[in-house]
Amino acid sequence: MPATRLGALLPELRRILPAGSILTEEEQLRPYECDGLTAYRQLPMVVALPDTTEQVQAILALCSRERVPVVARGAGTGLSGGALPLADGVLLSLAKFNRILEIDPVNRSARVQPGVRNLAISEAVAHLGLYYAPDPSSQIACTIGGNVAENSGGLHCLKYGLTVHNIQELEVITVEGERITIGAPALDAPGFDLLALMTGSEGLLGVIVEVRVKLLPRPECARVMLAAFDAVEDAGTAVGAIISRGIIPGGLEMMDNAAIRAAEDFVHAGYPTSAAAILLCELDGTQEEVDVQIDKVRTLLEECNATELRVAQSEEERNRFWAGRKAAFPAVGRISPDYYCMDGTIPRRELPRVLSETEALSRRYDLPVVNVFHAGDGNLHPLILYDANEPGQLERVEELGARILELCVEVGGTITGEHGVGVEKIDQMCTQFQSAELTRFHEVKSAFDEHALLNPGKAVPTLRRCAELGGMHVHGGRIPFPDIERF
Amino acid sequence: MPATRLGALLPELRRILPAGSILTEEEQLRPYECDGLTAYRQLPMVVALPDTTEQVQAILALCSRERVPVVARGAGTGLSGGALPLADGVLLSLAKFNRILEIDPVNRSARVQPGVRNLAISEAVAHLGLYYAPDPSSQIACTIGGNVAENSGGLHCLKYGLTVHNIQELEVITVEGERITIGAPALDAPGFDLLALMTGSEGLLGVIVEVRVKLLPRPECARVMLAAFDAVEDAGTAVGAIISRGIIPGGLEMMDNAAIRAAEDFVHAGYPTSAAAILLCELDGTQEEVDVQIDKVRTLLEECNATELRVAQSEEERNRFWAGRKAAFPAVGRISPDYYCMDGTIPRRELPRVLSETEALSRRYDLPVVNVFHAGDGNLHPLILYDANEPGQLERVEELGARILELCVEVGGTITGEHGVGVEKIDQMCTQFQSAELTRFHEVKSAFDEHALLNPGKAVPTLRRCAELGGMHVHGGRIPFPDIERF
Repeated sequence: MPATRLGALLPELRRILPAGSILTEEEQLRPYECDGLTAYRQLPMVVALPDTTEQVQAILALCSRERVPVVARGAGTGLSGGALPLADGVLLSLAKFNRILEIDPVNRSARVQPGVRNLAISEAVAHLGLYYAPDPSSQIACTIGGNVAENSGGLHCLKYGLTVHNIQELEVITVEGERITIGAPALDAPGFDLLALMTGSEGLLGVIVEVRVKLLPRPECARVMLAAFDAVEDAGTAVGAIISRGIIPGGLEMMDNAAIRAAEDFVHAGYPTSAAAILLCELDGTQEEVDVQIDKVRTLLEECNATELRVAQSEEERNRFWAGRKAAFPAVGRISPDYYCMDGTIPRRELPRVLSETEALSRRYDLPVVNVFHAGDGNLHPLILYDANEPGQLERVEELGARILELCVEVGGTITGEHGVGVEKIDQMCTQFQSAELTRFHEVKSAFDEHALLNPGKAVPTLRRCAELGGMHVHGGRIPFPDIERF
Repeated sequence: MPATRLGALLPELRRILPAGSILTEEEQLRPYECDGLTAYRQLPMVVALPDTTEQVQAILALCSRERVPVVARGAGTGLSGGALPLADGVLLSLAKFNRILEIDPVNRSARVQPGVRNLAISEAVAHLGLYYAPDPSSQIACTIGGNVAENSGGLHCLKYGLTVHNIQELEVITVEGERITIGAPALDAPGFDLLALMTGSEGLLGVIVEVRVKLLPRPECARVMLAAFDAVEDAGTAVGAIISRGIIPGGLEMMDNAAIRAAEDFVHAGYPTSAAAILLCELDGTQEEVDVQIDKVRTLLEECNATELRVAQSEEERNRFWAGRKAAFPAVGRISPDYYCMDGTIPRRELPRVLSETEALSRRYDLPVVNVFHAGDGNLHPLILYDANEPGQLERVEELGARILELCVEVGGTITGEHGVGVEKIDQMCTQFQSAELTRFHEVKSAFDEHALLNPGKAVPTLRRCAELGGMHVHGGRIPFPDIERF
């Protein structure tokens, strides 16, 4: 711990926050050392727990003046290390910003603080027949501020969009401590679309202190179908067939045989354990609409060689079908000492190709890969199974993971669907982007945070880092911000 | 015409483009002197008509080097003067970029050049049962590049979103002439959301040379209802009632008595000419779904005191119902020598209040205001009727227009829904935003175009301009870019 720096900062911090809201002891700092990506750990210099916007402003103004880096943190459920602290930085927890400020059924929106849990919003408006659509698997725990920072998706984002499509307005504190309002509670907003720019910016552009989310009417009816296939490729083809016929399921998930068996052993969802792959396809809307869509999807699935087709006949059966999917990650955790969850997206039509090439890579690296993912929007989550206690395995896992992400980029996809770049995939950003695009990112970052104090080292690599990795053509020898070690 | 500057530029331009693609004679320049906002006119110094991306890159690199401002132009149908030329600038027409490059039904997307007309996309994919959703009233003529620059909406954007929700990827040429790819043909993209940032940026950040649009399945069935009311406020209340019950119509439009009568005289749509207001509510989906929704909406409309309710019984009748709405602007043009079309948005719940306050303003300024607008998403289009030949009227019209927009901001709305800021509403940006937000816009602009060569003088006012208008608190005396006269 850089005691001198902390010594200089603490008296100032104590002028802003009560003593109980400043943590400096190692045992107090420990819970903040990592987020959901536990492979990376670092104790912060100090944790600050403000509970008013004015305090957030004062902390940021202080850190700006003292050139102390700041990492904002929600519930810490992120999977790419976006909330990993810095040894010489302030960890700014928004945990106390947990109030729902306003519910407006006529405009179908709610104004909430960033520390409100995702699911808590839907619970608070359930009596109005409304809900907040994006539903990341961590929705019981994750908070809306983190959802905005990572532009989170979920099982239903195929139909209902990502976080960016489901928010209207943000109150943001700039690195200098200034409060700005971006977006509007009405359609569109003039000026540049800073709302979208801020969403998914992984804490690099500002600190969110308020979010106005859109609310949707709960569909009258939702039913789920389960289709089994003898070949993974057939399941991939079926996904394309459903979407290209103009059907937009509420959710469309795929699991391969290893995932099916792991889930079945764990939660007894009634899955066909001998199938090479299953698709879970949820259709929602009015009763009549759902009936019509189920008939259409049934025909398409049969044409794609589905060997078995079941439609959940009750809400209880529907929940059971989903239980296996939702428990798939912990289920895989039961059959392997460790696993590494990837998150890439691809254009849907490339699904059969990417699945068979992933299988080939899995054989080449001699590491099992389990596939369970959001098939409808081409968001893959290959889980690489390994044992961290076996020397050399982790390195091979990371190499295989990188190959899979490169494959995603090669077919026109991206290195992250919904988990963000964080520290985890910062090197793959050099594969995803050319120097011209990265330079544009650097310029945008600089427009908001010229001294790179907000969450430095995450999300956007320097050109130097990319050049050192060897993958990047540096345009005209320009390396931006040569004086800033971490961007 | 600044002959010297042109003299220096022309030989270089001729190295990039064939002679026929460079226009300098006054009669050649005349068609480019304005866009749809004809009150503002200016001949450009020169018009360039490239037909390859490399030519666009070379022109921009040249203009960057020579510090010559550039205004990009699509079909010139914009309503806020976003494509107004500069006397000392290059008008860069993308008219020759009119090819559809790729149609991909599996990924439900199409890759098109920016000069492709909006409607031409839907026509090209109609045989696949697909269409491109955003449908501005000018869709026969307006081009997709301009739609992206203005983030255009349309009759159906309540349900299907604005342009930003219906595109996936852009190829953009920076002011330096560098080509960058933003967005991705897959779900989401890592890094900052430059796709949304570029959309609606009114030509200030780059020149678009390629757009990948999303395509949607054409709904199986679409039916329209017409409801008449004795009070405008009742119609406003009905809009809130429909939306808050969770029904999302494909389109939900309102017209007041003056608009009804003008449209009826013009196209004989069969509208009830004695009604204070009508609502047109289109419901789309499967046959069954539409039937269910029509019943629900009928009940709600009756509860809101609708005096008459009709459901179009045939496609022919549906088209007739819409014909009056679509012809409303030209219909108003027949009853008044001139009219000024406003474009503000408000939260839906404020509809009754804003309509009655607009009426009061109309009386105070002694200028008739006709209301015809996208009620469902709170996007108002008050038309102020006047006679430009009567001295002093235009000034009164502009003042009334400003008052109406200020009213929109006051109730939590915005000064533009879908027409953009351009030159028309640049002063109202000082009402909409505080200096902290405007400063952020300036920083973003500077990140893309540090010498302010792309469409200067549009969309974002300088703080100095706002300060001179008297409406703005300038933070700490900071006026950005004091050396740049126009931003």
